[in-house]
Amino acid sequence: VTGRGDLPAPPVTPLRWVGGWQDGSLEVLDQTLLPVEERVLVRRRANEVIEDIRRLAIRGAPLLGIAGAYAVVLAAREAIESGVGAAAFRPALKSAAARIGAARPTAVNLASGVSDVLFASEAGADPAACAGLALERARALEQRERAACESIARHGAKLLAGKGRILTHCNAGALVTPGLGTALAPIYALHHRGAKVHVWVDETRPLLQGLRLTSYELTRAGVPHTVVGDGAAPGLMRRGQVDAAIVGADRICANGDVVNKVGTYGVALACRAHGIPFYVAAPLSTFDAGTARGEDVVIEERRGDGRVYLKPGTSPDAVSTAEPAFDVTPADLVTAYLTEEGVKPGPRGK
Amino acid sequence: VTGRGDLPAPPVTPLRWVGGWQDGSLEVLDQTLLPVEERVLVRRRANEVIEDIRRLAIRGAPLLGIAGAYAVVLAAREAIESGVGAAAFRPALKSAAARIGAARPTAVNLASGVSDVLFASEAGADPAACAGLALERARALEQRERAACESIARHGAKLLAGKGRILTHCNAGALVTPGLGTALAPIYALHHRGAKVHVWVDETRPLLQGLRLTSYELTRAGVPHTVVGDGAAPGLMRRGQVDAAIVGADRICANGDVVNKVGTYGVALACRAHGIPFYVAAPLSTFDAGTARGEDVVIEERRGDGRVYLKPGTSPDAVSTAEPAFDVTPADLVTAYLTEEGVKPGPRGK
Repeated sequence: VTGRGDLPAPPVTPLRWVGGWQDGSLEVLDQTLLPVEERVLVRRRANEVIEDIRRLAIRGAPLLGIAGAYAVVLAAREAIESGVGAAAFRPALKSAAARIGAARPTAVNLASGVSDVLFASEAGADPAACAGLALERARALEQRERAACESIARHGAKLLAGKGRILTHCNAGALVTPGLGTALAPIYALHHRGAKVHVWVDETRPLLQGLRLTSYELTRAGVPHTVVGDGAAPGLMRRGQVDAAIVGADRICANGDVVNKVGTYGVALACRAHGIPFYVAAPLSTFDAGTARGEDVVIEERRGDGRVYLKPGTSPDAVSTAEPAFDVTPADLVTAYLTEEGVKPGPRGK
Repeated sequence: VTGRGDLPAPPVTPLRWVGGWQDGSLEVLDQTLLPVEERVLVRRRANEVIEDIRRLAIRGAPLLGIAGAYAVVLAAREAIESGVGAAAFRPALKSAAARIGAARPTAVNLASGVSDVLFASEAGADPAACAGLALERARALEQRERAACESIARHGAKLLAGKGRILTHCNAGALVTPGLGTALAPIYALHHRGAKVHVWVDETRPLLQGLRLTSYELTRAGVPHTVVGDGAAPGLMRRGQVDAAIVGADRICANGDVVNKVGTYGVALACRAHGIPFYVAAPLSTFDAGTARGEDVVIEERRGDGRVYLKPGTSPDAVSTAEPAFDVTPADLVTAYLTEEGVKPGPRGK
């Protein structure tokens, strides 16, 4: 993917389908090894992708949708190769799709990407045609998400113009989409145009996506940034060092509540306390009209994962931890939602 | 130190002076090695104590005051042993005291403990008498701080009665005082009396004092607790899982602003948003009438320290970080201040 005029090329490609449905494979950049090692895994089986999703080698709402979509293609091929026969093909694919869609519960994109591809494949006259349609739809989804990123980049660049000191939480960049990202997309656009931008990056415990991943891709893109502990943002705001905050989302509920990485809610509260705009950037695929409010979303618990990145011996082995992966930011803290269709004011921005 | 009736013994002894001024030494529990290793260092020179303070082997506002006080005793002995003579003794001691008091800037207790002992020593007729008076005063300061902890424990136990789910940030326990601690003292008292108490412990990046130290001493005392990432607290509050928050302080300004570990301000903002009381526990020695407001306090920057406890390779070597060690919680977010004299309502509690 190269840049187009006013937009730069994405600084990193987290996922790439290569080939047709018969011989193709999904190339996965293993995000658990970043920033130290850039290892690309070649996946030919749906179960491998499910495992990559579970262990967070593939992560981020939009990317989960794309990965799930391609995993359905792999599952279709596996069903054909296993010789289940035309009659049993569809039940087998449906069952595989259910397993793929359930690999992680919080992001709406995964389940919807999977069911979208499954639905498209049903128009095929035989299993091979179904698999071909599945790949076609997966590619279309990927292209749609890439275009959404570009649109978010352009709309967001207007929104953030003149706001040079921008805080973000977790990683909502090129690593979670097939394009420029969501929250980071406008920042890449502004930087590409020569605007003066500096990003405060919350390190984002427990899994340090800010320190490991956002810093990695901002560095590749040459965007100046500084990583801070998750507790630092309110103090930075109080000292007048933040002009705006922008984050991605795992799911946006019908009432506007935002489910996103744990710690997002605290950022939004601090923004309100200081009159700093709080923006949520997400493609329309992340909006879930079927979920009324944040409290209805399953919040994943990462028990023990927070120690993965700590030096052995830092914490007592027997320590009890709670590691909710997400939290809910109520709609009334949102200044604006930024989607491929433009800027939609939230309650705080009206 | 043993318990007395309604109060338990402190679960850990971070500092202990052994002997007279001529032959004595300061035993220091090296807090940088906790929770894995309990190593006690025997210090006979003021410079060793300065270094222990700088590298955070000794830490926490009240304990810094005591350590500084005993370091002046060591400096007095060194001056005598170096044979500077009676005339040069006082200038030498003053100069050493200035260096000790400047080992860290944020906590008011260090400078005030040092100058208190220096002042007391001046009544001595000769250097030996001065050193003796210095030790006497250092011991008195230690005893006063221990008694303050007991008083905070008793007053605080009343304040927290019925509030069984308590959140704390950083470490303001037995490890930072010669007694039961400040923020944790009421919790120890309640637990000792059989009250049902559960503590949410913020892990407290960058130096993980919650995960490493608060969890360590709560475990020794048998108090049930769960460690959470610093971004989790607002979400816990929103889900109704927190009854009160209590923290210590490095310095409380004349206007009531609280300077404490970075992240405290965000906890206070979230408490206000949810109508949860936010308490600050500190001995009177932490109140600094000479500093008008939080903005006037020097905030230490721990550049690079946040990686000390991370597995090598977790962050890119070249990453730019900012690590303010403290932040300012404005007085109007404080429900009450808890001191040895009792409970003083803050603006939020009036």
